[in-house]
Amino acid sequence: MLSGDRRALARVISLIEDRDESLRTIIDAIYPKTGNAFVLGITGPPGSGKSTVTDKLVAEIRKRSGKRVAVIAVDPSSPFSGGAILGDRIRMQSHSGDADVYIRSLGTRGKHGGLSQSSKEVVMALDAAGFDWIVVETAGVGQTELDILRLAHAVCVVLVPESGDGIQVMKAGLMEIADLFVVNKSDRPEADKLVRELTTLIGMNEKRSAHDEWKIPVLKTQALFSQGIDELFAQLQEYRAYAQEHGVLAKRRLAFIEDEIAGIILDEVSRSIRRNLSNTTGRKIVSAVYNLLETPHQASEKFYHSKSDQKTLK
Amino acid sequence: MLSGDRRALARVISLIEDRDESLRTIIDAIYPKTGNAFVLGITGPPGSGKSTVTDKLVAEIRKRSGKRVAVIAVDPSSPFSGGAILGDRIRMQSHSGDADVYIRSLGTRGKHGGLSQSSKEVVMALDAAGFDWIVVETAGVGQTELDILRLAHAVCVVLVPESGDGIQVMKAGLMEIADLFVVNKSDRPEADKLVRELTTLIGMNEKRSAHDEWKIPVLKTQALFSQGIDELFAQLQEYRAYAQEHGVLAKRRLAFIEDEIAGIILDEVSRSIRRNLSNTTGRKIVSAVYNLLETPHQASEKFYHSKSDQKTLK
Repeated sequence: MLSGDRRALARVISLIEDRDESLRTIIDAIYPKTGNAFVLGITGPPGSGKSTVTDKLVAEIRKRSGKRVAVIAVDPSSPFSGGAILGDRIRMQSHSGDADVYIRSLGTRGKHGGLSQSSKEVVMALDAAGFDWIVVETAGVGQTELDILRLAHAVCVVLVPESGDGIQVMKAGLMEIADLFVVNKSDRPEADKLVRELTTLIGMNEKRSAHDEWKIPVLKTQALFSQGIDELFAQLQEYRAYAQEHGVLAKRRLAFIEDEIAGIILDEVSRSIRRNLSNTTGRKIVSAVYNLLETPHQASEKFYHSKSDQKTLK
Repeated sequence: MLSGDRRALARVISLIEDRDESLRTIIDAIYPKTGNAFVLGITGPPGSGKSTVTDKLVAEIRKRSGKRVAVIAVDPSSPFSGGAILGDRIRMQSHSGDADVYIRSLGTRGKHGGLSQSSKEVVMALDAAGFDWIVVETAGVGQTELDILRLAHAVCVVLVPESGDGIQVMKAGLMEIADLFVVNKSDRPEADKLVRELTTLIGMNEKRSAHDEWKIPVLKTQALFSQGIDELFAQLQEYRAYAQEHGVLAKRRLAFIEDEIAGIILDEVSRSIRRNLSNTTGRKIVSAVYNLLETPHQASEKFYHSKSDQKTLK
């Protein structure tokens, strides 16, 4: 995989998705090769055209920089909302002749949970495999999607006038995660109104967080006609340079590492709790709660301090 | 709240949503009053009409049984997908004159994470407040939604022919959680085809899990015209009696309690990890990972065994 074999890469990603037992060995082996990629998150409500933006941006990155690009399309609710992402994959075949573009979808595969942890590890694998840009496109703006975007060095939020007004953007928590806004399908009426609303809200936010010198741009695109994509790429390059220089990349990489470490520990603790819940002591405690003799909080304290738990948790 | 004051109930739910510090005291006080309600989850892909099914079912429960009903509409991606749920709330005002129906939406309020834990606690509050039926309607079939539905005693999956075929239903993990299927808008072409596909898939599943004697029904409804809702209510009553008799309710209540205890512990461990990551030892470990001297797994082991961690985790 490290020498650029695409099939090996695909296999590693499948092992990550399946939470295979060999995972730890693999991650330990590839981790020292990471730390070079720029990870861009692209999100937005359904119908905003974020997939088209991604598609055109990939073409622009290839044309302007010649760098290798990987795209992972993450959809926590596939296969039901899978229509769009399936469509993407077909459309994305415009890059299929390009050995320096790698595209992969990540869904829940019927087993739920763990998508956020898997996404981080897939990003590590792509980073180790030498991709300079890793674009993480999420299917929507739900809780799981926003959790996943914590792994990005930059987040681009794609909106259309129809998807809502500035207040909704703020309520959805998108103000807090956006480093760039794109108003797509900008030929539609109301596009300028949304741009103005966003600009005002950004201005208000900036007063609150004066330490950050990056001025969040609000760009207009018509991605379907490749309009505005050159400016988007230019702004991303500028952001990347800014983030490198001002320690933002370092800060986000540290946050990524903390999330990954916490994720590994929580996975392990979670398994340990499940084991302890089903042993003799555990079943007694659960049964006391079932019979309303104890509350869940009281039980959790017993658990946390119970002998078997101490042994397992060290 | 326990004496039926709706305003007190609304305040308690807000405290739960805000993860207020008084939470533990409140849950400890109300928990002994729980264990009487029947918790029904209703889910389905967007556009399946599950809100209409919920609305009509509430009316049917009220008419047939006279029991008190609470509805919580959970949407992990509000406010963007909030259109539908807002619509519901307006439509649900058909029950607004009825003091024995309580309706509440739960969204992410801009802060992400914790919706699954909050939902469990809101269900406890409604149970303690004396609602006999608690209907939990989710906005879609994403990872978060399916996690949330683990709290239900029964799950009703609402589909329409347009939302996909049987194979997609299986892939989305809905076969594993459904206790009843509803094919809504059943006047549309292809409805019977979906009913046949689901029935076949259920038959195949039953062979695998022969211990379960409940035969999952596939019902046809046209909820907008209240058609098929009487049959749905009848099947739910039958399921409730079956589940009571065969220990299914007991099993699900035990699973709920285990989830709640695990959730409380994981919340606490998570906070403890975050504290430890930012103390002197923690920062040293994270920095070693940042500099590629250690892998996240190696670091997580140090953490897990580090002095400060032991002290906090006990």
